[in-house]
Amino acid sequence: MQRDPEALVARAITGDRGAIAKLISMVESGGPDATIAGAALYPHTGRGYTIGLTGAPGAGKSSLTDALVSRIRADGDEVGVLAIDPTSPFSGGAILGDRVRMQDHATDPGVYIRSMATRGHLGGLALATPRAVRVLDAAGKPWIVIETVGVGQVEVEIAGAADTTVVVVNPGWGDGVQANKAGLMEIADLFVVNKADRDGVAETVRDLEMMLDLSAHSDWRPRIIETVATRGDGVAELWDAIKEHRAFQEQNGRLARRREERLREELRSIVVTRLEHEASAACSGERFEALLDAVAARQLDPHTAAAELLRDR
Amino acid sequence: MQRDPEALVARAITGDRGAIAKLISMVESGGPDATIAGAALYPHTGRGYTIGLTGAPGAGKSSLTDALVSRIRADGDEVGVLAIDPTSPFSGGAILGDRVRMQDHATDPGVYIRSMATRGHLGGLALATPRAVRVLDAAGKPWIVIETVGVGQVEVEIAGAADTTVVVVNPGWGDGVQANKAGLMEIADLFVVNKADRDGVAETVRDLEMMLDLSAHSDWRPRIIETVATRGDGVAELWDAIKEHRAFQEQNGRLARRREERLREELRSIVVTRLEHEASAACSGERFEALLDAVAARQLDPHTAAAELLRDR
Repeated sequence: MQRDPEALVARAITGDRGAIAKLISMVESGGPDATIAGAALYPHTGRGYTIGLTGAPGAGKSSLTDALVSRIRADGDEVGVLAIDPTSPFSGGAILGDRVRMQDHATDPGVYIRSMATRGHLGGLALATPRAVRVLDAAGKPWIVIETVGVGQVEVEIAGAADTTVVVVNPGWGDGVQANKAGLMEIADLFVVNKADRDGVAETVRDLEMMLDLSAHSDWRPRIIETVATRGDGVAELWDAIKEHRAFQEQNGRLARRREERLREELRSIVVTRLEHEASAACSGERFEALLDAVAARQLDPHTAAAELLRDR
Repeated sequence: MQRDPEALVARAITGDRGAIAKLISMVESGGPDATIAGAALYPHTGRGYTIGLTGAPGAGKSSLTDALVSRIRADGDEVGVLAIDPTSPFSGGAILGDRVRMQDHATDPGVYIRSMATRGHLGGLALATPRAVRVLDAAGKPWIVIETVGVGQVEVEIAGAADTTVVVVNPGWGDGVQANKAGLMEIADLFVVNKADRDGVAETVRDLEMMLDLSAHSDWRPRIIETVATRGDGVAELWDAIKEHRAFQEQNGRLARRREERLREELRSIVVTRLEHEASAACSGERFEALLDAVAARQLDPHTAAAELLRDR
């Protein structure tokens, strides 16, 4: 059975690419199979380290991910990439135009690349992404890069829910200020000033440093790395900074606390999403209309009607 | 028993001011007594006609309400006034400074004035206001004016949930545009250009007319009335326009449909609020922390933990 979630998990943990692809589609769609798959995957997870990568469209995140993947592969480690696009109705990796660049790695069995798009259910990607990460984690990928296409609220939330979050900006007046406005200062563990062969690098670095001086960050002060991703410049330094941040967090128990905090938020989101679905279900259909008619006829007051609707669940 | 909700309702429907005051405080606080009171009040409601009055702070809404109350009283009808202030932690009528103006009516037993403020619970006023309206409705007030202090989202929602909604603006460049931005064009059945002794009245009326030309309104085109509330100018015209709008709605069944639509929204809001409370309750306390620990220890995946939390309700 190709669609038996538990059989797929058994194959995925051996690294089977077909099973990984099917499982990610499954958790992306939600529903009962996703729940079974999620439960079967979960005991096999916890070893992968996630790197979130976000920044405005055009900042060069795809090129940077591409270069970072090459750098990781140079160490011999496997890597999984999730490209998250809440604005696209499409998913599956081959469809997004800029994914074409990643085809350098298309024939490398040590790299698994996948794009994920919204499937129409509200908050769907924010819940589906950690599940998709767990597919790659259970499949034994020690590094998982989560790249978002932009800096929308959902994208910032998703990229911020990583072990190390990298915020990509470009040289030029105001980019640092924009990062501040979009809530990126709060989530950044590292800043990358990409396209650093252009004018204005020093000003952008100075703006970021100034905002870091003013902002309340923990005892880790975000590093600022200059890169030209398309030429590979600065990518080794970025990789070193990521490993430095990882080591810092692993030394003092921060990583465990950060992951527990993330699980707390995930658990809350699942509960809220389920109750939102219950609210939608309660407020539609024949039973709702019948109770509304009774309220309009003054046979029942609205609060008693609401209690009845919820009692019927 | 002073606090027995059903006994209070029995007294309130005879017009007892003390019982009215206690019931409004009761529904404002929420909780089981409010539910009992709401159910007991509901069969006695449906005769009162509500007038919502909103506009930016300083537009002269209090003066206009004051003048409107005088005009209604000149016909011999009783009137209830609810002044809604989501920004204030106080309630009870005597506390709000600008309520002082309403003291003209303080000794008139045909007028009941009450201010309501937020009691800390989110969305509380939006749910408490229709219940407070029902207290005045059951107490036999044929006219109920709901005045909000500003044009925040909750205030626009509350003022818009009336049988006739009056939007108050002032002469001056851009006030009409602001009204458009705040979502006031959609809810207005009547516009009042108050302080019409100032410069710019013609321009403001023209702006409003132009926006009405452009906006999709139903077969009722909102009237625009010029007033100087502090002198009583134009208040008779406003009162005529309110009665004209009422007659229009009563002729073609619109009023019944509008009220049913409002009940639909109220029922939805009650369901959503109750489920939001359930979500908060589920995501706090010992049980939540114990399940989170199990998730962190990988004994349980987040979705299974969420299902357990919700099963325990």
